[in-house]
Amino acid sequence: MPERVFRSRRTLAWGECDPAGIIYYPTYYRWMDQAAWDLLSACGFGARRMRDEGLTIPLVNAQCDFIASPVFGDACEVRTWLQRHGRSSFTLAHEVWRLAPAGEGELLARGSESRVWCRYQAGPGSALRSEPLPADLLAALN
Amino acid sequence: MPERVFRSRRTLAWGECDPAGIIYYPTYYRWMDQAAWDLLSACGFGARRMRDEGLTIPLVNAQCDFIASPVFGDACEVRTWLQRHGRSSFTLAHEVWRLAPAGEGELLARGSESRVWCRYQAGPGSALRSEPLPADLLAALN
Amino acid sequence: MPERVFRSRRTLAWGECDPAGIIYYPTYYRWMDQAAWDLLSACGFGARRMRDEGLTIPLVNAQCDFIASPVFGDACEVRTWLQRHGRSSFTLAHEVWRLAPAGEGELLARGSESRVWCRYQAGPGSALRSEPLPADLLAALN
Amino acid sequence: MPERVFRSRRTLAWGECDPAGIIYYPTYYRWMDQAAWDLLSACGFGARRMRDEGLTIPLVNAQCDFIASPVFGDACEVRTWLQRHGRSSFTLAHEVWRLAPAGEGELLARGSESRVWCRYQAGPGSALRSEPLPADLLAALN
Repeated sequence: MPERVFRSRRTLAWGECDPAGIIYYPTYYRWMDQAAWDLLSACGFGARRMRDEGLTIPLVNAQCDFIASPVFGDACEVRTWLQRHGRSSFTLAHEVWRLAPAGEGELLARGSESRVWCRYQAGPGSALRSEPLPADLLAALN
Repeated sequence: MPERVFRSRRTLAWGECDPAGIIYYPTYYRWMDQAAWDLLSACGFGARRMRDEGLTIPLVNAQCDFIASPVFGDACEVRTWLQRHGRSSFTLAHEVWRLAPAGEGELLARGSESRVWCRYQAGPGSALRSEPLPADLLAALN
Repeated sequence: MPERVFRSRRTLAWGECDPAGIIYYPTYYRWMDQAAWDLLSACGFGARRMRDEGLTIPLVNAQCDFIASPVFGDACEVRTWLQRHGRSSFTLAHEVWRLAPAGEGELLARGSESRVWCRYQAGPGSALRSEPLPADLLAALN
Repeated sequence: MPERVFRSRRTLAWGECDPAGIIYYPTYYRWMDQAAWDLLSACGFGARRMRDEGLTIPLVNAQCDFIASPVFGDACEVRTWLQRHGRSSFTLAHEVWRLAPAGEGELLARGSESRVWCRYQAGPGSALRSEPLPADLLAALN
């Protein structure tokens, strides 16, 4: 695992579960998506800046292995880091852990998102063009 | 009930339920919202036209009485009609019914949405100004 | 406003917005539902206890006035309190505020949920029967 | 592509989009999940039967390539088929297409879900044990 891991806490909500009483699996992708935006925010690329500069991070691929299932009320943590990157494309690795009162907790899921750093060519909703990942973002991620 | 009622079918999905095995209640609002857009589409104001003309329908209030709860797989119908309107504001009434193989089915929920007919002043995301409800929309709703 | 107000922080997520760039309105109900469960948890009725004792809190009605709209990334706070109650039924009032770096912030929405304190008669998913609100819950809410 | 492909229609809803005006990507997983349950239903394993017999289909992995993005109101189709299976495990392939008034439409996303055929050992929410895929299900899928 690399040096810089971003952590965000989540408590599994009633409305994030399914009739089996466990996490509804697309919830993991909602959490990974939110962790990606939180990571950018922690690196100086918050929601306002992304919007003002016409930046966005569309997906190319997402995948996840489901290892164990949290139930309503479980305290969890999403751990996210930059797995690899090219000029514009980058892959975030995500692990979701169930926190334990003592000790390491339990790994629930291990996934990744492949995204591209893009700019709208003419305002929100217009065509996108990929751009090089900003140097200060890469510095903050390592 | 008025003459023109718009009907849309829904089968309650696994991911629209909660750990109690019944509908997760915000799902009703998702259904009402979708029924509102479907009604507009049926009246000639489809997604593309709304977007191209910079029109939108923000909410002022929404409310719902919950009478009985569908479970995963139940066939339902949302019945929607114009309850009242002013120059720009309008209220949609919604009923959600569980369909039965024979007979009338069962009323599950009765709600409403109060909305305003608005136009973006300068492209998506810009300030909104209310506008008179189009005459052809009102004609189609009655 | 009463003495005991429960507060929960929320940052409006990318996936909680709509194509207008503002909160997708059913999100308010997701937040109110989560605030209700958080309030119970803060009063000693956490997820595990509710599950173990076969307790649940189905809805009778929910409503919300929408006053202003947060955008992606806005820091918000849900303020929740017991508005009134009977033997088994209770109504939670909710306000959603946008937090400001200084000062009071801005009221975004004002809603309520009417619920009933119930117990499953024979395990999860079985028939529900209303029960008197526990005295220690009422004490904690005031 | 195999002989038996299951098709389900979806119109991208307002609440399934993100502030970029395109599909919020976890929506693809919601659609794939729903297509999986629809496929079972079409093969004689509807929601009621699955519930009554204590059957469920937990996930081991899900992944998706995102090729093009639908916008609000786009008519889409999810095409689903059995990609491979073992004794209890099975993988569903999913393609999401944007339908065109004429011609083939456009491939938007290509994904898969790996699941296990399981039975609750003691009622809803209890421990799961994998079971052989039913012969009549396999027959219906081919």
